[in-house]
Amino acid sequence: MAKSASSKHPAHYTRLCDLLREAASIGAVGSLLGWDQETYMPHAGAAMPGGRADQSSIISGIVHERRTSKEIGDLIARCEADKNLLGDSRIAANIREMRRDYDLATKLPTSLVSELARTGSLSQDAWKDARAKNRFKDFKPWLEKMLDLTRQKAKCYGVPKGGEVYDALLDEYEPGMTAREVEGIFTPLRGRLAGLVSEIVASKAKVSDKCTEIGASQADQHAFGHDVIKALGFDLNAGRLDTTAHPFCSGMGPGDTRLTTRYGKPSILEALGSTMHEAGHGMYEQGLPKGTHFGQPLADAISLGIHESQSRMWENLVGRSRAFWQWALPVAKKRFGAKLAKVNVDQMYAAANVVQPSFIRVEADEATYNLHIMIRFAIERALISEDLSVSDLPGTWNAMYKEYLGLKVPSDTLGCLQDVHWSFGLIGYFPTYTLGNLYAAQFWVQISRDIPDLDKRMAKGDFAPLLAWLRKNIHQHGRRYRAAELCQRVTGRPLSADPLMAYLEGKLRPIYGLDGGAKAGAKAAFKPARRAHAMAMA
Amino acid sequence: MAKSASSKHPAHYTRLCDLLREAASIGAVGSLLGWDQETYMPHAGAAMPGGRADQSSIISGIVHERRTSKEIGDLIARCEADKNLLGDSRIAANIREMRRDYDLATKLPTSLVSELARTGSLSQDAWKDARAKNRFKDFKPWLEKMLDLTRQKAKCYGVPKGGEVYDALLDEYEPGMTAREVEGIFTPLRGRLAGLVSEIVASKAKVSDKCTEIGASQADQHAFGHDVIKALGFDLNAGRLDTTAHPFCSGMGPGDTRLTTRYGKPSILEALGSTMHEAGHGMYEQGLPKGTHFGQPLADAISLGIHESQSRMWENLVGRSRAFWQWALPVAKKRFGAKLAKVNVDQMYAAANVVQPSFIRVEADEATYNLHIMIRFAIERALISEDLSVSDLPGTWNAMYKEYLGLKVPSDTLGCLQDVHWSFGLIGYFPTYTLGNLYAAQFWVQISRDIPDLDKRMAKGDFAPLLAWLRKNIHQHGRRYRAAELCQRVTGRPLSADPLMAYLEGKLRPIYGLDGGAKAGAKAAFKPARRAHAMAMA
Repeated sequence: MAKSASSKHPAHYTRLCDLLREAASIGAVGSLLGWDQETYMPHAGAAMPGGRADQSSIISGIVHERRTSKEIGDLIARCEADKNLLGDSRIAANIREMRRDYDLATKLPTSLVSELARTGSLSQDAWKDARAKNRFKDFKPWLEKMLDLTRQKAKCYGVPKGGEVYDALLDEYEPGMTAREVEGIFTPLRGRLAGLVSEIVASKAKVSDKCTEIGASQADQHAFGHDVIKALGFDLNAGRLDTTAHPFCSGMGPGDTRLTTRYGKPSILEALGSTMHEAGHGMYEQGLPKGTHFGQPLADAISLGIHESQSRMWENLVGRSRAFWQWALPVAKKRFGAKLAKVNVDQMYAAANVVQPSFIRVEADEATYNLHIMIRFAIERALISEDLSVSDLPGTWNAMYKEYLGLKVPSDTLGCLQDVHWSFGLIGYFPTYTLGNLYAAQFWVQISRDIPDLDKRMAKGDFAPLLAWLRKNIHQHGRRYRAAELCQRVTGRPLSADPLMAYLEGKLRPIYGLDGGAKAGAKAAFKPARRAHAMAMA
Repeated sequence: MAKSASSKHPAHYTRLCDLLREAASIGAVGSLLGWDQETYMPHAGAAMPGGRADQSSIISGIVHERRTSKEIGDLIARCEADKNLLGDSRIAANIREMRRDYDLATKLPTSLVSELARTGSLSQDAWKDARAKNRFKDFKPWLEKMLDLTRQKAKCYGVPKGGEVYDALLDEYEPGMTAREVEGIFTPLRGRLAGLVSEIVASKAKVSDKCTEIGASQADQHAFGHDVIKALGFDLNAGRLDTTAHPFCSGMGPGDTRLTTRYGKPSILEALGSTMHEAGHGMYEQGLPKGTHFGQPLADAISLGIHESQSRMWENLVGRSRAFWQWALPVAKKRFGAKLAKVNVDQMYAAANVVQPSFIRVEADEATYNLHIMIRFAIERALISEDLSVSDLPGTWNAMYKEYLGLKVPSDTLGCLQDVHWSFGLIGYFPTYTLGNLYAAQFWVQISRDIPDLDKRMAKGDFAPLLAWLRKNIHQHGRRYRAAELCQRVTGRPLSADPLMAYLEGKLRPIYGLDGGAKAGAKAAFKPARRAHAMAMA
């Protein structure tokens, strides 16, 4: 094993970091198994004895055993008692988060971890088949198993006093957040979003993305996606872009961050949106200090909400801006040739900002997207508390789509089978997407203040100042701060829905010719404070 | 873990099989790490702390620990003492080979296994760079390290009495074979081959593959490769074909066998040859009974020589036959269109059988190929015994290419840097390629007798009888028989160089218009015996 370079630290801390790095290396191997299963693995290998499901299960079990070893527990305790060490606030944060991870992990028996991985791997395969064939009933028993295992997991974590089972799961993805808090943010947001969306739907403005339905080949779209993510700053020497059924980003190890996307929709914007989204995750992963701290909390993402703030920022605040298209349209024209020749920046900007209630979350526009999330949040919360049975899932899903988005869902493939998450037990994960949108909009207000010429730079294809800002203010810290604290430090305020609503109103009202657009615009509604703590910028 | 279905067996045997399957699953994960590094892994991840080199090292260490556990040793001993169990000759063979594996593995300390994997991973990356840049001196320190580690490995295995260090390594790949025996086969073979090659070189026959240099795209060649391997019988639902610098086959788990090939040479035959070669390995892997015996010797390949007999058979005895091209040429014409329109079967057959001394082993024709192997065997034997220093490797390589093939090697990239093997410590491996050619030719004589209409079937694209023969006579047995015993059972004779020489003379003399062609032909020279033991066919 390569040794950590931090020889200036006491042996108990160095040894702890070495052990955690070794466990993280094995974890990265597990990530490769997952990535491979979604990209290149031949189907026959999944379920056979000794095949991929067993492999995932064994590797998860080994990682879990290592992370919960008595030696690690003892070393953490020794570090916690080492006042010299705790004098360094970064190291103190590192140890605080190591403790959190250790306590969470030791609550789960190895057998449950292995079972979640093995059943999850099989269930994911069953989901893929069921989705392709529109057969919810084939997936139903798997979802029931995964919910059962996930409930067991929540019970091991322990339900907080006065809380619910869901909280124990949510806390894994968004430390410190509760279902009630999420509900408290979502309920009024739903009202404001629904109001905006209904105005847009009722408007007579003709905003369309027809001009981007150019029948582009997958190869050309793939090449264009590479053009864009390279320009944004995703390092292709330390990462890749591949094709899957359900786009994801896997930051699987130091120097190895993998994005996936999918093609096949009429508009070239669909795949580009996915690609930029995953590249946003990927640049966060690449910005974490894994070269020096791999395996330690200091090289980990804070929370999924913060992770999503990065992906949604690049996808939406950048990718749906006029400035971006001033640069990207000529690049696209080089790739797609005559098919795009007559399209101008105004048309492209409008096309990127069509608002239209639709069935598929990952293809949704910025305004309706959060309504998709609210539906999933309500459903998974009810599934996990057993207030909703799996049998009733499709019916409930379809009823909520009618209520929230005014849509009649035509099939489960376009309905409750569309997302991979539940198939491998990701419950409590969905709300983080909307939290990410909220964080992104709030960060953006500060970014616009700190980089006054950002639009001009982006219009020239220069995204370096933005990435540098994110690296300095967010990425480099790893888990040094919790999400709420980071938000306060970076923007001077606690998380609020105002920046997101102001941004959406400010952009969409003019595009749709609605009253009150510019006046309610983002910058007017939310005045960024000067940062209270210069230290956060260190 | 999924349990083995063999509940009729005593608990100690079942438990042993379960433990070995679990170790093999982790081994398959290690294979995925290797495959990924050669196909899709971003370069940056290789050497960082916690990156791929560490990952490979940790996984190898875990596999080694599991395979050498005291529990497995005790269980093998219990099985060896169970007379009922040994009454089943297949199980007896299984236990015999488990003992061999266990004894070999327990001779290696885990630290050495990990070090070989980690240094091998880094060294392979260094080789790749050095090869691309034609800088042998960048690779030299890595090769020295790997030779040193490999010598340590040989010493752990133990040098047989009266033998040499090399024997300990060769035995791992070709159980029971010694360097002196290899030399005993190679020395006279070299004389007969050199005679044939010099006659061909001196002949005035114009045999050329110019007609196959059609500037085909990589995508078309990839599609054609898929057409061919699918027809041969490689199961693409349980395998894949990808692109790499150095073609290989990885039978990485049940239902998951991966081939790689490379493109970019002028003739479409180059990539096809590699693809068919690897598919030959792949069909052997797919024919091993991994569904029921994964992790046990009964689901393992006998030796590399036998593995190569499969790959070289499909590559050469099938792929360079007139019958194959009667079927394959029309298929190729569909893929490559006008570029191949004027080529006929005679031209294609001749093109596939050009004999021409050349620099690169994997592109060599059937006659010169074995001379490449003899050079490598002599050099690696001298390197491992320290009769040759790494500094002198390029000079010795070039001198031997002059002597054996009459060629002046223009660069190390086309010389001693061309093969990946030594970079990760595969010493004692090269001779198995020529052993494979010998086995293939000898099996083929028997196959031609057992399937009299084979040529007619192949000319129609029907390779099923050939694959069925291989499945029945070779694949299904796993390691039940040692190579020499299998050869005797299947062909009625011990391994001999006569079938290979008869086959080469019988094919190449007519093509090159040399005297004595048909008369010295394969079938005349080697009369297959009736099989002595019908049991081998069970």
